[in-house]
Amino acid sequence: MRILGIDPGTAITGYGIVDYQGNRFSVVDYNCFRTQAGLSLAERLQIIYHGILNIIERYNPTHVAVEELFFNNNARTALAVGHARGVIFLSAAEKGLPVFEYTPLQVKQAVAGYGRAEKKQVQYMVKSILCLPAVPTPDDIADALAVSICHAHLYAWERKFK
Amino acid sequence: MRILGIDPGTAITGYGIVDYQGNRFSVVDYNCFRTQAGLSLAERLQIIYHGILNIIERYNPTHVAVEELFFNNNARTALAVGHARGVIFLSAAEKGLPVFEYTPLQVKQAVAGYGRAEKKQVQYMVKSILCLPAVPTPDDIADALAVSICHAHLYAWERKFK
Repeated sequence: MRILGIDPGTAITGYGIVDYQGNRFSVVDYNCFRTQAGLSLAERLQIIYHGILNIIERYNPTHVAVEELFFNNNARTALAVGHARGVIFLSAAEKGLPVFEYTPLQVKQAVAGYGRAEKKQVQYMVKSILCLPAVPTPDDIADALAVSICHAHLYAWERKFK
Repeated sequence: MRILGIDPGTAITGYGIVDYQGNRFSVVDYNCFRTQAGLSLAERLQIIYHGILNIIERYNPTHVAVEELFFNNNARTALAVGHARGVIFLSAAEKGLPVFEYTPLQVKQAVAGYGRAEKKQVQYMVKSILCLPAVPTPDDIADALAVSICHAHLYAWERKFK
Protein backbone atom coordinates (compact mmCIF):
# COMPACT_ATOMS: atom_id res chain seq x y z
CA MET A 1 0.00 0.00 0.00
CA ARG A 2 1.01 3.60 -0.55
CA ILE A 3 0.29 5.86 2.40
CA LEU A 4 0.00 9.62 2.47
CA GLY A 5 0.59 10.82 6.04
CA ILE A 6 -0.35 14.41 6.82
CA ASP A 7 0.36 16.74 9.75
CA PRO A 8 -2.25 19.52 9.34
CA GLY A 9 -1.71 23.17 10.20
CA THR A 10 -2.81 26.45 8.63
CA ALA A 11 0.78 27.83 8.63
CA ILE A 12 2.64 24.59 7.82
CA THR A 13 1.11 21.31 6.65
CA GLY A 14 3.65 18.50 6.46
CA TYR A 15 3.19 15.42 4.31
CA GLY A 16 5.04 12.21 3.63
CA ILE A 17 4.31 9.41 1.16
CA VAL A 18 5.66 5.94 1.86
CA ASP A 19 5.21 2.54 0.23
CA TYR A 20 4.82 -0.44 2.55
CA GLN A 21 5.15 -3.93 1.05
CA GLY A 22 6.12 -7.13 2.84
CA ASN A 23 7.23 -5.35 6.03
CA ARG A 24 9.48 -2.99 4.07
CA PHE A 25 9.18 0.73 3.72
CA SER A 26 10.31 2.87 0.84
CA VAL A 27 9.97 6.61 0.83
CA VAL A 28 8.29 8.21 -2.18
CA ASP A 29 8.34 11.90 -1.22
CA TYR A 30 8.07 14.24 1.74
CA ASN A 31 7.77 17.97 2.08
CA CYS A 32 5.41 20.65 3.41
CA PHE A 33 3.14 23.46 2.31
CA ARG A 34 3.80 26.80 3.93
CA THR A 35 1.20 29.55 3.77
CA GLN A 36 2.11 33.16 4.39
CA ALA A 37 0.77 34.83 7.52
CA GLY A 38 -0.44 37.81 5.45
CA LEU A 39 -2.95 35.70 3.52
CA SER A 40 -6.59 35.38 4.57
CA LEU A 41 -7.66 32.15 6.23
CA ALA A 42 -9.65 31.24 3.10
CA GLU A 43 -6.58 31.72 0.88
CA ARG A 44 -4.38 29.64 3.18
CA LEU A 45 -6.97 26.84 3.17
CA GLN A 46 -7.10 26.96 -0.63
CA ILE A 47 -3.31 26.46 -0.82
CA ILE A 48 -3.51 23.46 1.52
CA TYR A 49 -6.54 21.96 -0.25
CA HIS A 50 -5.09 22.22 -3.76
CA GLY A 51 -1.64 21.20 -2.51
CA ILE A 52 -2.99 17.94 -1.11
CA LEU A 53 -5.16 17.32 -4.20
CA ASN A 54 -2.04 17.72 -6.37
CA ILE A 55 -0.03 15.34 -4.21
CA ILE A 56 -2.80 12.73 -4.45
CA GLU A 57 -2.98 13.13 -8.23
CA ARG A 58 0.79 12.91 -8.61
CA TYR A 59 1.45 9.92 -6.33
CA ASN A 60 -1.84 8.00 -6.18
CA PRO A 61 -1.71 6.94 -2.54
CA THR A 62 -4.19 4.25 -1.47
CA HIS A 63 -4.67 5.46 2.12
CA VAL A 64 -4.47 8.76 3.97
CA ALA A 65 -3.37 8.88 7.64
CA VAL A 66 -3.69 11.83 10.02
CA GLU A 67 -2.92 12.22 13.72
CA GLU A 68 -5.83 12.93 16.06
CA LEU A 69 -5.68 16.18 17.96
CA PHE A 70 -4.41 15.95 21.49
CA PHE A 71 -7.09 17.58 23.65
CA ASN A 72 -4.80 19.30 26.09
CA ASN A 73 -4.56 21.92 23.38
CA ASN A 74 -6.60 25.04 23.95
CA ALA A 75 -9.72 25.93 21.97
CA ARG A 76 -7.94 28.49 19.80
CA THR A 77 -5.32 25.95 18.67
CA ALA A 78 -8.01 23.32 18.15
CA LEU A 79 -10.01 25.68 15.92
CA ALA A 80 -6.95 26.54 13.79
CA VAL A 81 -5.99 22.88 13.36
CA GLY A 82 -9.66 22.07 12.67
CA HIS A 83 -9.72 24.48 9.71
CA ALA A 84 -6.71 22.73 8.12
CA ARG A 85 -7.99 19.24 8.99
CA GLY A 86 -11.37 20.08 7.43
CA VAL A 87 -9.93 20.80 3.98
CA ILE A 88 -7.52 17.83 4.23
CA PHE A 89 -10.33 15.37 4.99
CA LEU A 90 -12.29 16.96 2.16
CA SER A 91 -9.43 16.61 -0.34
CA ALA A 92 -9.09 12.89 0.49
CA ALA A 93 -12.85 12.36 0.19
CA GLU A 94 -12.96 14.20 -3.14
CA LYS A 95 -10.37 11.71 -4.43
CA GLY A 96 -12.27 8.74 -2.96
CA LEU A 97 -9.53 7.93 -0.43
CA PRO A 98 -10.21 6.62 3.08
CA VAL A 99 -8.76 8.63 5.99
CA PHE A 100 -7.41 6.87 9.08
CA GLU A 101 -6.82 8.68 12.36
CA TYR A 102 -4.37 7.72 15.08
CA THR A 103 -3.81 9.10 18.55
CA PRO A 104 -0.39 10.56 19.48
CA LEU A 105 0.00 7.53 21.76
CA GLN A 106 -0.55 5.10 18.89
CA VAL A 107 1.92 6.97 16.69
CA LYS A 108 4.66 7.02 19.35
CA GLN A 109 4.03 3.37 20.20
CA ALA A 110 4.17 2.28 16.55
CA VAL A 111 7.24 4.31 15.63
CA ALA A 112 9.35 4.32 18.79
CA GLY A 113 7.90 1.24 20.51
CA TYR A 114 6.97 3.32 23.53
CA GLY A 115 3.86 5.51 23.97
CA ARG A 116 5.65 8.12 26.04
CA ALA A 117 8.64 8.49 23.74
CA GLU A 118 10.09 11.99 23.39
CA LYS A 119 9.55 13.91 20.16
CA LYS A 120 13.29 13.61 19.37
CA GLN A 121 13.21 9.83 19.78
CA VAL A 122 10.23 9.55 17.42
CA GLN A 123 12.01 11.71 14.85
CA TYR A 124 15.17 9.65 15.13
CA MET A 125 13.16 6.45 14.60
CA VAL A 126 11.43 7.94 11.55
CA LYS A 127 14.87 8.64 10.05
CA SER A 128 16.07 5.16 10.96
CA ILE A 129 12.98 3.18 9.80
CA LEU A 130 12.83 5.04 6.48
CA CYS A 131 16.64 5.11 5.97
CA LEU A 132 16.64 8.88 5.51
CA PRO A 133 19.91 10.82 5.35
CA ALA A 134 18.73 13.13 8.17
CA VAL A 135 15.67 13.91 10.30
CA PRO A 136 13.36 15.87 7.97
CA THR A 137 12.66 19.44 8.98
CA PRO A 138 10.45 21.19 9.87
CA ASP A 139 8.99 18.83 12.50
CA ASP A 140 5.69 18.79 10.61
CA ILE A 141 7.28 16.58 7.92
CA ALA A 142 8.74 14.11 10.43
CA ASP A 143 5.34 14.00 12.17
CA ALA A 144 3.59 13.29 8.85
CA LEU A 145 6.02 10.43 8.10
CA ALA A 146 5.52 9.09 11.65
CA VAL A 147 1.76 8.78 11.15
CA SER A 148 2.37 7.02 7.79
CA ILE A 149 4.55 4.46 9.56
CA CYS A 150 1.94 4.07 12.29
CA HIS A 151 -0.78 3.40 9.74
CA ALA A 152 1.36 0.84 7.90
CA HIS A 153 1.96 -1.10 11.11
CA LEU A 154 -1.52 -0.92 12.59
CA TYR A 155 -3.42 -1.48 9.35
CA ALA A 156 -1.29 -4.48 8.38
CA TRP A 157 -1.59 -5.86 11.92
CA GLU A 158 -5.38 -5.52 12.01
CA ARG A 159 -5.81 -7.27 8.67
CA LYS A 160 -3.59 -10.13 9.81
CA PHE A 161 -5.93 -10.98 12.66
CA LYS A 162 -9.29 -10.39 11.10
CA MET B 1 -25.52 43.51 -1.90
CA ARG B 2 -26.53 39.89 -1.52
CA ILE B 3 -25.21 38.25 1.64
CA LEU B 4 -24.83 34.56 2.40
CA GLY B 5 -24.71 34.11 6.18
CA ILE B 6 -23.57 30.73 7.45
CA ASP B 7 -23.63 29.04 10.86
CA PRO B 8 -21.10 26.19 10.54
CA GLY B 9 -21.41 22.79 12.19
CA THR B 10 -20.56 19.24 11.14
CA ALA B 11 -24.06 17.96 12.09
CA ILE B 12 -26.10 21.02 11.02
CA THR B 13 -24.89 23.96 8.95
CA GLY B 14 -27.48 26.74 8.71
CA TYR B 15 -27.49 29.30 5.92
CA GLY B 16 -29.50 32.36 4.99
CA ILE B 17 -29.33 34.60 1.92
CA VAL B 18 -30.58 38.18 2.16
CA ASP B 19 -30.52 41.16 -0.17
CA TYR B 20 -29.76 44.54 1.38
CA GLN B 21 -30.43 47.65 -0.69
CA GLY B 22 -31.08 51.16 0.60
CA ASN B 23 -31.52 50.09 4.23
CA ARG B 24 -34.06 47.45 3.25
CA PHE B 25 -33.77 43.70 3.59
CA SER B 26 -35.40 41.05 1.48
CA VAL B 27 -34.98 37.38 2.14
CA VAL B 28 -33.91 35.18 -0.74
CA ASP B 29 -33.69 31.77 0.90
CA TYR B 30 -32.79 30.05 4.17
CA ASN B 31 -32.38 26.46 5.18
CA CYS B 32 -29.75 24.05 6.54
CA PHE B 33 -27.67 21.02 5.60
CA ARG B 34 -27.95 18.10 7.95
CA THR B 35 -25.38 15.32 7.86
CA GLN B 36 -26.08 11.91 9.35
CA ALA B 37 -24.14 10.88 12.44
CA GLY B 38 -23.29 7.52 10.81
CA LEU B 39 -21.23 9.15 8.05
CA SER B 40 -17.47 9.60 8.27
CA LEU B 41 -16.15 13.07 9.01
CA ALA B 42 -14.82 13.30 5.44
CA GLU B 43 -18.26 12.45 4.00
CA ARG B 44 -19.99 15.00 6.23
CA LEU B 45 -17.53 17.68 5.15
CA GLN B 46 -18.14 16.81 1.49
CA ILE B 47 -21.89 17.33 1.96
CA ILE B 48 -21.31 20.74 3.55
CA TYR B 49 -18.71 21.79 0.97
CA HIS B 50 -20.80 20.87 -2.07
CA GLY B 51 -23.95 22.19 -0.40
CA ILE B 52 -22.42 25.64 0.03
CA LEU B 53 -20.92 25.57 -3.48
CA ASN B 54 -24.39 24.81 -4.89
CA ILE B 55 -25.98 27.61 -2.89
CA ILE B 56 -23.37 30.08 -4.17
CA GLU B 57 -23.91 28.92 -7.77
CA ARG B 58 -27.70 29.14 -7.44
CA TYR B 59 -27.97 32.54 -5.72
CA ASN B 60 -24.75 34.40 -6.61
CA PRO B 61 -24.18 36.17 -3.28
CA THR B 62 -21.60 38.97 -3.28
CA HIS B 63 -20.39 38.47 0.32
CA VAL B 64 -20.17 35.61 2.80
CA ALA B 65 -20.54 36.26 6.55
CA VAL B 66 -19.70 33.83 9.36
CA GLU B 67 -19.75 34.19 13.13
CA GLU B 68 -16.42 33.90 14.97
CA LEU B 69 -16.17 31.11 17.48
CA PHE B 70 -16.71 32.08 21.08
CA PHE B 71 -13.65 30.82 22.97
CA ASN B 72 -15.41 29.67 26.09
CA ASN B 73 -16.10 26.58 24.04
CA ASN B 74 -13.91 23.60 24.81
CA ALA B 75 -11.21 22.28 22.50
CA ARG B 76 -13.34 19.36 21.26
CA THR B 77 -16.17 21.68 20.17
CA ALA B 78 -13.67 24.10 18.63
CA LEU B 79 -12.10 21.30 16.57
CA ALA B 80 -15.49 20.10 15.29
CA VAL B 81 -16.59 23.62 14.33
CA GLY B 82 -13.14 24.20 12.80
CA HIS B 83 -13.61 21.26 10.42
CA ALA B 84 -16.90 22.69 9.14
CA ARG B 85 -15.56 26.27 9.01
CA GLY B 86 -12.53 25.08 7.04
CA VAL B 87 -14.59 23.70 4.15
CA ILE B 88 -16.96 26.71 4.25
CA PHE B 89 -14.10 29.23 3.95
CA LEU B 90 -12.69 27.06 1.18
CA SER B 91 -15.99 26.97 -0.75
CA ALA B 92 -16.24 30.79 -0.62
CA ALA B 93 -12.61 31.15 -1.76
CA GLU B 94 -13.13 28.68 -4.60
CA LYS B 95 -15.94 30.92 -5.84
CA GLY B 96 -13.87 34.09 -5.38
CA LEU B 97 -16.08 35.44 -2.59
CA PRO B 98 -14.76 37.42 0.40
CA VAL B 99 -15.57 36.06 3.87
CA PHE B 100 -16.33 38.42 6.75
CA GLU B 101 -16.25 37.32 10.38
CA TYR B 102 -18.14 38.85 13.28
CA THR B 103 -18.00 38.20 17.00
CA PRO B 104 -21.14 37.04 18.82
CA LEU B 105 -21.13 40.48 20.51
CA GLN B 106 -21.21 42.27 17.14
CA VAL B 107 -24.02 40.04 15.89
CA LYS B 108 -26.19 40.61 18.97
CA GLN B 109 -25.47 44.32 18.93
CA ALA B 110 -26.35 44.65 15.24
CA VAL B 111 -29.49 42.53 15.36
CA ALA B 112 -30.96 43.21 18.81
CA GLY B 113 -29.24 46.54 19.57
CA TYR B 114 -27.72 45.08 22.71
CA GLY B 115 -24.54 42.97 22.97
CA ARG B 116 -25.86 40.88 25.83
CA ALA B 117 -29.22 40.10 24.29
CA GLU B 118 -30.65 36.64 24.92
CA LYS B 119 -30.72 34.09 22.09
CA LYS B 120 -34.54 34.31 21.98
CA GLN B 121 -34.46 38.10 21.60
CA VAL B 122 -31.99 37.83 18.71
CA GLN B 123 -34.18 35.23 17.02
CA TYR B 124 -37.28 37.38 17.48
CA MET B 125 -35.47 40.37 15.96
CA VAL B 126 -34.34 38.26 12.97
CA LYS B 127 -37.97 37.34 12.34
CA SER B 128 -39.05 40.95 12.75
CA ILE B 129 -36.28 42.60 10.64
CA LEU B 130 -36.74 40.13 7.80
CA CYS B 131 -40.58 40.01 8.07
CA LEU B 132 -40.58 36.24 8.38
CA PRO B 133 -43.80 34.37 9.25
CA ALA B 134 -42.03 32.65 12.19
CA VAL B 135 -38.61 32.25 13.81
CA PRO B 136 -36.76 29.81 11.50
CA THR B 137 -35.80 26.48 13.04
CA PRO B 138 -33.41 24.92 13.83
CA ASP B 139 -31.53 27.74 15.60
CA ASP B 140 -28.66 27.34 13.13
CA ILE B 141 -30.78 28.98 10.42
CA ALA B 142 -31.79 31.93 12.60
CA ASP B 143 -28.11 32.33 13.60
CA ALA B 144 -27.05 32.32 9.94
CA LEU B 145 -29.63 35.01 9.12
CA ALA B 146 -28.49 37.04 12.15
CA VAL B 147 -24.90 37.15 10.90
CA SER B 148 -26.17 38.22 7.43
CA ILE B 149 -28.03 41.14 9.03
CA CYS B 150 -24.95 42.01 11.09
CA HIS B 151 -22.78 42.11 7.97
CA ALA B 152 -25.29 44.29 6.11
CA HIS B 153 -25.30 46.85 8.91
CA LEU B 154 -21.58 46.91 9.70
CA TYR B 155 -20.36 46.78 6.12
CA ALA B 156 -22.72 49.56 5.01
CA TRP B 157 -21.76 51.60 8.08
CA GLU B 158 -18.03 51.24 7.49
CA ARG B 159 -18.30 52.29 3.85
CA LYS B 160 -20.34 55.33 4.85
CA PHE B 161 -17.52 56.71 6.98
CA LYS B 162 -14.47 55.78 4.94
